[in-house]
Amino acid sequence: MTDILRKAVVLSSGGLDSTTAIAIALHDGFEVYSLSFDYGQRHRHELEAAFKVAGALKVKKHLVITLDFRAIGGSALTDDIDVPKMRSDEQMVSAIPVTYVPARNTVFLSYALAWAEVIQAGHIFIGVTAVDYSGYPDCRPQFIEAFENMANLATKTSVADGNRIRIHTPLIDMTKAQIIQTGTRLGVDYAMTHSCYDPTTNGRACGRCDSCILRRKGFIEAGVDDPTAYAQKPR
Amino acid sequence: MTDILRKAVVLSSGGLDSTTAIAIALHDGFEVYSLSFDYGQRHRHELEAAFKVAGALKVKKHLVITLDFRAIGGSALTDDIDVPKMRSDEQMVSAIPVTYVPARNTVFLSYALAWAEVIQAGHIFIGVTAVDYSGYPDCRPQFIEAFENMANLATKTSVADGNRIRIHTPLIDMTKAQIIQTGTRLGVDYAMTHSCYDPTTNGRACGRCDSCILRRKGFIEAGVDDPTAYAQKPR
Repeated sequence: MTDILRKAVVLSSGGLDSTTAIAIALHDGFEVYSLSFDYGQRHRHELEAAFKVAGALKVKKHLVITLDFRAIGGSALTDDIDVPKMRSDEQMVSAIPVTYVPARNTVFLSYALAWAEVIQAGHIFIGVTAVDYSGYPDCRPQFIEAFENMANLATKTSVADGNRIRIHTPLIDMTKAQIIQTGTRLGVDYAMTHSCYDPTTNGRACGRCDSCILRRKGFIEAGVDDPTAYAQKPR
Repeated sequence: MTDILRKAVVLSSGGLDSTTAIAIALHDGFEVYSLSFDYGQRHRHELEAAFKVAGALKVKKHLVITLDFRAIGGSALTDDIDVPKMRSDEQMVSAIPVTYVPARNTVFLSYALAWAEVIQAGHIFIGVTAVDYSGYPDCRPQFIEAFENMANLATKTSVADGNRIRIHTPLIDMTKAQIIQTGTRLGVDYAMTHSCYDPTTNGRACGRCDSCILRRKGFIEAGVDDPTAYAQKPR
């Protein structure tokens, strides 16, 4: 394989999904460049987790880009709005969560594309899932396809060299349980990953937010021990 | 018109093209939210010009977002590579310029989309032109169309409310001269705009870079007096 075929930028939030996406990209033989964003999120433990994951999985390079999302506003993850707790499954799938960051995946993938062009990577991995899809428009397969199409018109690499840039979504059809089973098979230690929207100051997961509930449920369904340090055990 | 139909985010570099795009959006009856980026560009006079333009044209709001492009690298505008001087017309149209910032318009438009979603704007203006098109892949009409298509799958606004987000490129078929004539008709004072890639420390245009040469040529062809303060008159 030439370099452009071998290199992949993988978006990493330090969470369960993106960490599994890194493990899959490595397993598929890609040289992985993991990319995280510091966008003033209240849960900075995410960034520490992403850094730990990069080290543990031995990616080629890990880059943290600072985003100025606060200037734009519009989400519980960056604004001072309370994170919703203990929402029912129905609430979680029926509405776009207030934790939605505007055009987030579009912005994240755009940076991934920029970095891919500089390092001459032909592949981008993003750990979007059918679960996220429930509320986030930019996690749907048709969005990813449209982004890939746009990306192939956007860059010097794709235009000048006739290469195609591919956006990989290895988790898109997986349940949380299947993701956990896949990662576990690939040797991922999920103790180093972070999912909680509202952790305690010492980094323990709250156990009550949407993200904690989905994570906990995933481990139970997967039949895998949940190594997460919860401040309060999820129901 | 409802708000979403009236509001437009307009990308503003403080240059001749984007300033004309703002004037056109205002003339077309949009409430304009101008958006500039501080991406460590060497010519920070751009940002001052964009600020002046926002004030002079009385936009509703002007926002400057800090981008972490240096972390990614890859261009003469942000890296320590010399800006090319006095290139021939042929050189300018035959190759992608080294001043290219990777996936720049993709990233810029992504932020415009994020802001548009937060303020509930249904329109984005970008002053790309047939001249830029000569070297930058992300200035081509097919790129803009692909971005618009992606944008309409990406956001809560477009998904939930059935609205379409439109990307406007009012300058795309205009020559530099036609842009200058249009803006002049709309009352734009181009003295406040800034195009030079390599200005002197006191903000005078170098008169020798691609951007100065194209600008100067545009004024001559338009038959409009060039109000630019050049350190050295372009040929």
